[in-house]
Amino acid sequence: MRCEVLAIGTELLLGIIVDSNSAWLGEQLALAGIDCYFQVKVGDNFGRIEACIRQALDRSDAVICCGGLGPTQDDITRDVIASVMGVKLQRDAAIAAKIRHMFESRGRVMSQNNLRQADVPIGATPIAQMPGTAPGLVCPMGDKVIYATPGVPNEMHEMFLGTILPDLRRRAGQASVIKSRVLRTWGMSESGLAEVLEKRFDELDKLGTPTIAFQASGIDGIKVRIVAKCDDEAAAARVLDAEEALIRGLLGEVIFGVDEQSMETVVLDLLRRKGLTFAAAETITGGILSARMSLADAAMATYRGGWIDPATGSGGGAKPEQRAAAAASQVRAQFGARVGLAAIAPEAAEGYRPGTVFLAADIDGAAHGEQVMQPPDRRRMREFSVISLLNLLRRTLSA
Amino acid sequence: MRCEVLAIGTELLLGIIVDSNSAWLGEQLALAGIDCYFQVKVGDNFGRIEACIRQALDRSDAVICCGGLGPTQDDITRDVIASVMGVKLQRDAAIAAKIRHMFESRGRVMSQNNLRQADVPIGATPIAQMPGTAPGLVCPMGDKVIYATPGVPNEMHEMFLGTILPDLRRRAGQASVIKSRVLRTWGMSESGLAEVLEKRFDELDKLGTPTIAFQASGIDGIKVRIVAKCDDEAAAARVLDAEEALIRGLLGEVIFGVDEQSMETVVLDLLRRKGLTFAAAETITGGILSARMSLADAAMATYRGGWIDPATGSGGGAKPEQRAAAAASQVRAQFGARVGLAAIAPEAAEGYRPGTVFLAADIDGAAHGEQVMQPPDRRRMREFSVISLLNLLRRTLSA
Repeated sequence: MRCEVLAIGTELLLGIIVDSNSAWLGEQLALAGIDCYFQVKVGDNFGRIEACIRQALDRSDAVICCGGLGPTQDDITRDVIASVMGVKLQRDAAIAAKIRHMFESRGRVMSQNNLRQADVPIGATPIAQMPGTAPGLVCPMGDKVIYATPGVPNEMHEMFLGTILPDLRRRAGQASVIKSRVLRTWGMSESGLAEVLEKRFDELDKLGTPTIAFQASGIDGIKVRIVAKCDDEAAAARVLDAEEALIRGLLGEVIFGVDEQSMETVVLDLLRRKGLTFAAAETITGGILSARMSLADAAMATYRGGWIDPATGSGGGAKPEQRAAAAASQVRAQFGARVGLAAIAPEAAEGYRPGTVFLAADIDGAAHGEQVMQPPDRRRMREFSVISLLNLLRRTLSA
Repeated sequence: MRCEVLAIGTELLLGIIVDSNSAWLGEQLALAGIDCYFQVKVGDNFGRIEACIRQALDRSDAVICCGGLGPTQDDITRDVIASVMGVKLQRDAAIAAKIRHMFESRGRVMSQNNLRQADVPIGATPIAQMPGTAPGLVCPMGDKVIYATPGVPNEMHEMFLGTILPDLRRRAGQASVIKSRVLRTWGMSESGLAEVLEKRFDELDKLGTPTIAFQASGIDGIKVRIVAKCDDEAAAARVLDAEEALIRGLLGEVIFGVDEQSMETVVLDLLRRKGLTFAAAETITGGILSARMSLADAAMATYRGGWIDPATGSGGGAKPEQRAAAAASQVRAQFGARVGLAAIAPEAAEGYRPGTVFLAADIDGAAHGEQVMQPPDRRRMREFSVISLLNLLRRTLSA
């Protein structure tokens, strides 16, 4: 089964918008075992869109068209598809009523061209999910198929997962179910992970399913993705559970989260479960930790605040690990929190390798510290220090 | 003149990397007046890359291939281009020596396959700019041309601007020069800007050059792009200068910067020129201001620090504008800075519309304040408040 992606919109070609839809669809198709060999961007031009759709149907079994379903005159995806299908457009009364209702319920006046979005090529089926005003389309062409979705990412995602993917899998005759799980790691290199998992890789090569792949993701750590292909959902879930348990056994505390969990949300959950609050002294991290935490904990019920002061933890004769510990205690006291965190870099005269950072966590008066090496450029040193600092807290609280 | 973009790499189709190169190239081509009607992504597959290049040469005058020039076995762009040209690859001794030298100078061992990067199709010219180990290629095919660049963005940018764009313009017979300038604005809606500039738009429609276009860019404000097409560089620069002066006359202080200037860098420049330092009380902005400033002012010589404390500026009987002013003075005093900034949101009981924010700047003891409406969702309210706060400081210092 081969499926192409056609992203439609002159603003994509002009670089006003970066086409992230194709990348998302490419990932989803790959996870579902559907080949995607071509992804094309084309402008709002009838002839060129038509040529791209015809070529896609020529060399693939399906094409997903994203964009050009809106109400304005340059939204012509519907018209082009009708032309490729050799049929007329017909206004769908139920969709027209829905669009009218959407405007009314928001107290807005609807201009008539909005009803163009209710036009459906004869023989096509509108996609039931309709978070916006434009419905998606499933347009069969013999044994092949054209799908159309709006270019708005969340609307496209919903239509793809709810209708297009199941339809593609049915057409591919895939009786099997493909499920994946991502284990998020921090603190080990990709080659380090590969070494620990080497034997398991060899075993899986023989088994065929599940498969494991790494994905380095900068300050989001390295992701270990498990993909299971099974006869049904329950079997796939069992395979994923078993493989996760096995990998956890091998990698241990390097795994900080699963799927969409971030280091912030994991640490926040841990703190909340233990009824703890925390504050941070941002000496070298420049406010990045606070910005991330205040976004994850909008009410600031668990993250109580902090300060950004490059002077914290400098000099005074004490060793850098002592200065980091003192800063953690000080910020904890100032904000009346149970936990204080701090990260400091030693001064040049102290003779540490560039990129050396001292992390400290004060939990109810008990000091925990760690010396780590970060990338020496300041931007990455800051971002990596934020994650390393949260990771120190995570490991300490989980111990 | 039509030029396509072909992004090569299986990781692009799998969504592991989002293809931002095509968007960048699309913008550059549009600015240069060169049409780009198609942008295609294809995997590391000989036959499919070849088909894409042949199709591009069929329907366009030029194609820029990005990616697949590295040293590994799946980097086959060179080989495919040689096949399309009907020629063999020949090792370029000078490039091979350069690659060897790059490894030696970094003290790294070079594996032999790195020298594949020195292979050039007979009849092609390597691109002189070579920031990495892979050179780009200019490959003429009759009156058409294939360009190849690495997929690494900064290497691609350098080769495009240094060699490919001038070559494209020469081929297009463009004697004229196209130059653009972006005026960055904050504080006025797109329709507000359009209203102020309406008469000028009408005049420019008749003149033909320069042209003006808006680009809404979220927390980067709304960009006003002026594009001038003239006989030579000097004339284009004069047109841009004149148009900028005219637009500045109409828009006034709404314009905060030009081209790549950000609100942070503009404010930092102003403060540095006046020998001022500053600190910020981040009550509602959660550390975002500090994170941005500490990145722009890595040494923290001008931005002295701040605190993140949701309790600052709450209650106490005083009005919200007074509480904002008090927080600005307090943080200024604590960090020994000349300027203190603060943004606070009133409490629900105070009866302001959701999204109301009070901004305050204390400059050497003189208070400046402003009441603004921000988007009510917390994420955007924070980000917009950061820019609005810096903008208040900018306007006050420029007055």
